[in-house]
Amino acid sequence: MSRIRIGVLASGRGSNLQAIIDSVKEGRLDAEVAVVVSDVEDAYALDRARSAGIEARYIDPARKGARLSKESERRVIDVLDEFRVDLIALAGFMRILRSDFVRHFSGRIMNIHPSLLPSFPGLKVQMKALEYGVKYSGCTVHFVDEGVDTGPIIIQAAVPVLDGDTEEVLSSRILREEHRIYTEAIRLFAEGRLKIEGRVVHVLPERRDDAGGDESRH
Amino acid sequence: MSRIRIGVLASGRGSNLQAIIDSVKEGRLDAEVAVVVSDVEDAYALDRARSAGIEARYIDPARKGARLSKESERRVIDVLDEFRVDLIALAGFMRILRSDFVRHFSGRIMNIHPSLLPSFPGLKVQMKALEYGVKYSGCTVHFVDEGVDTGPIIIQAAVPVLDGDTEEVLSSRILREEHRIYTEAIRLFAEGRLKIEGRVVHVLPERRDDAGGDESRH
Repeated sequence: MSRIRIGVLASGRGSNLQAIIDSVKEGRLDAEVAVVVSDVEDAYALDRARSAGIEARYIDPARKGARLSKESERRVIDVLDEFRVDLIALAGFMRILRSDFVRHFSGRIMNIHPSLLPSFPGLKVQMKALEYGVKYSGCTVHFVDEGVDTGPIIIQAAVPVLDGDTEEVLSSRILREEHRIYTEAIRLFAEGRLKIEGRVVHVLPERRDDAGGDESRH
Repeated sequence: MSRIRIGVLASGRGSNLQAIIDSVKEGRLDAEVAVVVSDVEDAYALDRARSAGIEARYIDPARKGARLSKESERRVIDVLDEFRVDLIALAGFMRILRSDFVRHFSGRIMNIHPSLLPSFPGLKVQMKALEYGVKYSGCTVHFVDEGVDTGPIIIQAAVPVLDGDTEEVLSSRILREEHRIYTEAIRLFAEGRLKIEGRVVHVLPERRDDAGGDESRH
């Protein structure tokens, strides 16, 4: 068994991408980020990839709005296939993926979302949580299906919302947990320990013989 | 300032009622449960009230369904007024309150709900949480408004959902937190420390002079 190859899709600064890169570099994640793709030409995520010696590709989205053009999305699929990725990790990717994409990589696309889903799907969710007045929020790593933030949940983390929290303060408290659980979710995937049953994701126990195998791989 | 008087509405076994009674008895809550009202004649909650020497009243709901009849609800209001309650605590009360009721006791009705609202409002929510596959659930104490489980949130508690959890196991893990936060929410109300702003509930800091006052009251 070789290290899994990850393709990361990002539209912005890519702080979750950086967390994944760091986890790999520091040996906490036995995986390789094979390629980073962005629909935003000057996304800082692409700079982060280049700085880490990772292939960085900009794909012209060809249109504004919630989705890439069909042709652009096809090009993203081609790049991910070219790099033979085992897993696609969305990290602040601001487009909704079409059914063709989701089906092509079925069960192999993860997203991280800064709320305790199913509360607050969509955008600007830390502000929505503050406006609703919840006392706990958090983040969710889930498999991507054809809905928006509706796919089977892999890991969540809960954080308190404190009186006087601003959007920035709450976002940053949640972000620390995002970085932690995204690495953890990818690690479980890489270890073959995630089993989707209906919409529930079971985490299988660590296998002792695999732990031995890990050693011999290095 | 005298101890606040609580009216509890319950339809079932009343485990949250018992938690409130115990908190009062053990001095963790400076309040008095003045009356317990039920729409179910043989509700165990009424037995609990009688055992604790608390007035227990059954009000014939006069109809099945989500709401009491208008006349029955009027009788509940009359009982609560008769006992001059400062706060109404719903504890497994299985009816939706009409606008008249909510307006009559505006800002003085609390409910406890076994999920992290706004996720999973309504009924059978522990099962809904398991079927959705969330990895965290919990409970919420909120002020009651005219919607179902939509009012301003006072306190929440988060608990992990573990692989293999049954509805019973998860419910019991959540219930322990319900008992803790319901007492805490009533205590904050009794201390005048809850301030509703829009739909956000702010918890004001403890006032030192009040703490002194508490002592002299006993």
